[in-house]
Amino acid sequence: MSKIGFIGLGIMGRPMAGHLMAAGHELVTYVKGGSLNNELAEKGMVALDSPKAVAEQAEIIITMVPDTPDVEEVLLGEQGVIEGLKPGTLVIDMSSIAPIPTQAIAKRITDAGGEFLDAPVSGGEGGAINAALTIMVGGPEASFQRALPVLEVMGKTITLIGDHGAGQICKVANQIVVALTIQATAEGLLFASKAGADVSKVREALLGGLAQSKILDVHGERMINRTFDPGFRIRLHQKDLNLALESARTLDLSLPGTANAQQLFQGCAANGGADWDHAGLVRALEELANHEIGS
Amino acid sequence: MSKIGFIGLGIMGRPMAGHLMAAGHELVTYVKGGSLNNELAEKGMVALDSPKAVAEQAEIIITMVPDTPDVEEVLLGEQGVIEGLKPGTLVIDMSSIAPIPTQAIAKRITDAGGEFLDAPVSGGEGGAINAALTIMVGGPEASFQRALPVLEVMGKTITLIGDHGAGQICKVANQIVVALTIQATAEGLLFASKAGADVSKVREALLGGLAQSKILDVHGERMINRTFDPGFRIRLHQKDLNLALESARTLDLSLPGTANAQQLFQGCAANGGADWDHAGLVRALEELANHEIGS
Repeated sequence: MSKIGFIGLGIMGRPMAGHLMAAGHELVTYVKGGSLNNELAEKGMVALDSPKAVAEQAEIIITMVPDTPDVEEVLLGEQGVIEGLKPGTLVIDMSSIAPIPTQAIAKRITDAGGEFLDAPVSGGEGGAINAALTIMVGGPEASFQRALPVLEVMGKTITLIGDHGAGQICKVANQIVVALTIQATAEGLLFASKAGADVSKVREALLGGLAQSKILDVHGERMINRTFDPGFRIRLHQKDLNLALESARTLDLSLPGTANAQQLFQGCAANGGADWDHAGLVRALEELANHEIGS
Repeated sequence: MSKIGFIGLGIMGRPMAGHLMAAGHELVTYVKGGSLNNELAEKGMVALDSPKAVAEQAEIIITMVPDTPDVEEVLLGEQGVIEGLKPGTLVIDMSSIAPIPTQAIAKRITDAGGEFLDAPVSGGEGGAINAALTIMVGGPEASFQRALPVLEVMGKTITLIGDHGAGQICKVANQIVVALTIQATAEGLLFASKAGADVSKVREALLGGLAQSKILDVHGERMINRTFDPGFRIRLHQKDLNLALESARTLDLSLPGTANAQQLFQGCAANGGADWDHAGLVRALEELANHEIGS
């Protein structure tokens, strides 16, 4: 069992940290401008004064924070992890952040004598609670093997994609594919509905052929049953597609479908839907068609 | 066993008709401006002078022709099926044509004393050869039950979607979903490749989560292995998306993703790719990015 520093106790981080404690690991944390959640404190988690203080105690440090600047602040900022880093400490960033800055962060941690992995997840709150996250990892093979027993406590499909940044690249690719497959499902079912067909039967028939996808199955059903409680929130998918489109600009890459899907998410947000499940993308198309699926 | 009129002996129609003869049905046909394929003649198929002559002999008539005007000509034109139609003859149009004209064709056949089903297929040449087509049917339940033993000789997943036209609506929805899922796969893998990740590993990781689709599996592999022999030709998918976009205009429906995918197929066609497999959509994006997946 390891002494693990876990920074970032939000919707995802809380259950993930809970699994690690349940597995017998000793956890310390730093809570920015707040106090430690009672439930986690009762399970034995200890809050320290700074990420630096966390680094001085932990063998493994996991970060699970909202965005690129948050990771940079916790790891590289004043009183940050890098100031207290012991030789050989393994830093695992499980946040979903930009791939290119990730490579720079990895270099800073490695140069300071630590090891670094980017290990973003997919599977949402449900995946975190059920320890069934998909984890996409970038970094050296040896660090991956060292992290594996810890990652296996939180996730199911855990893949080493490549070197530093490759985990974040894979996560962005995942969010691109998911967004466009949601739009695929939305346009297909909306067409069928407005043309007068029974969308439930259309969905079933399509699941039997080349159009099959997990999204057509799960999100297609949400579109038909009108259940748009998250799930995965549109505002978070907007953040991820923003990463995709910013990275694409840096990479000289044109992603017309991704840009299109992002505009539809923005159309949802403009109609009060930033906290709908991302299957709610269909509602932007429904607005344009003046028609709701199944009506 | 029935006497079946089968009109339209192209890439799809030939193996489909072959399966029907192998199952013991007696087949007659009309070949427009040509002569009957030797192989089919040797198996016992007889060519008659007109669709009208076919109708005078057959209990069931199947059409498998390229587009809406072709179906209209064969069924409703001069010397067409409708002129020779016997009371109670079942007409099954297995072509992929426009849903709204299909309803008008169904009315003409029904008013003339026949029964009508629209029963377009997906699964391509491979599905036709292996008798594994997905068949999406529109029309009355009783006609569907009557057709089922014949359809089961050619296909596997056979679904009654709804009334006349619903089969064609479902087929169009299928082609919308397939095209956009191809674009989803293309943008995700191209992003990963241009950002420097191993696309094979990205594809594998994504297949384990919410991004999973049959297209990511099959067409994703084609994009990585650079195998763009059809399969399903871009020119045929262009025809289907044209149907989708024309119908959408009639229906007051906005399909921004479908329009986008169609433009990318046109970009492929402009570069000599009309006969590439539809996974070749990725090449239009690769042109824009000046980067080929895996390079």
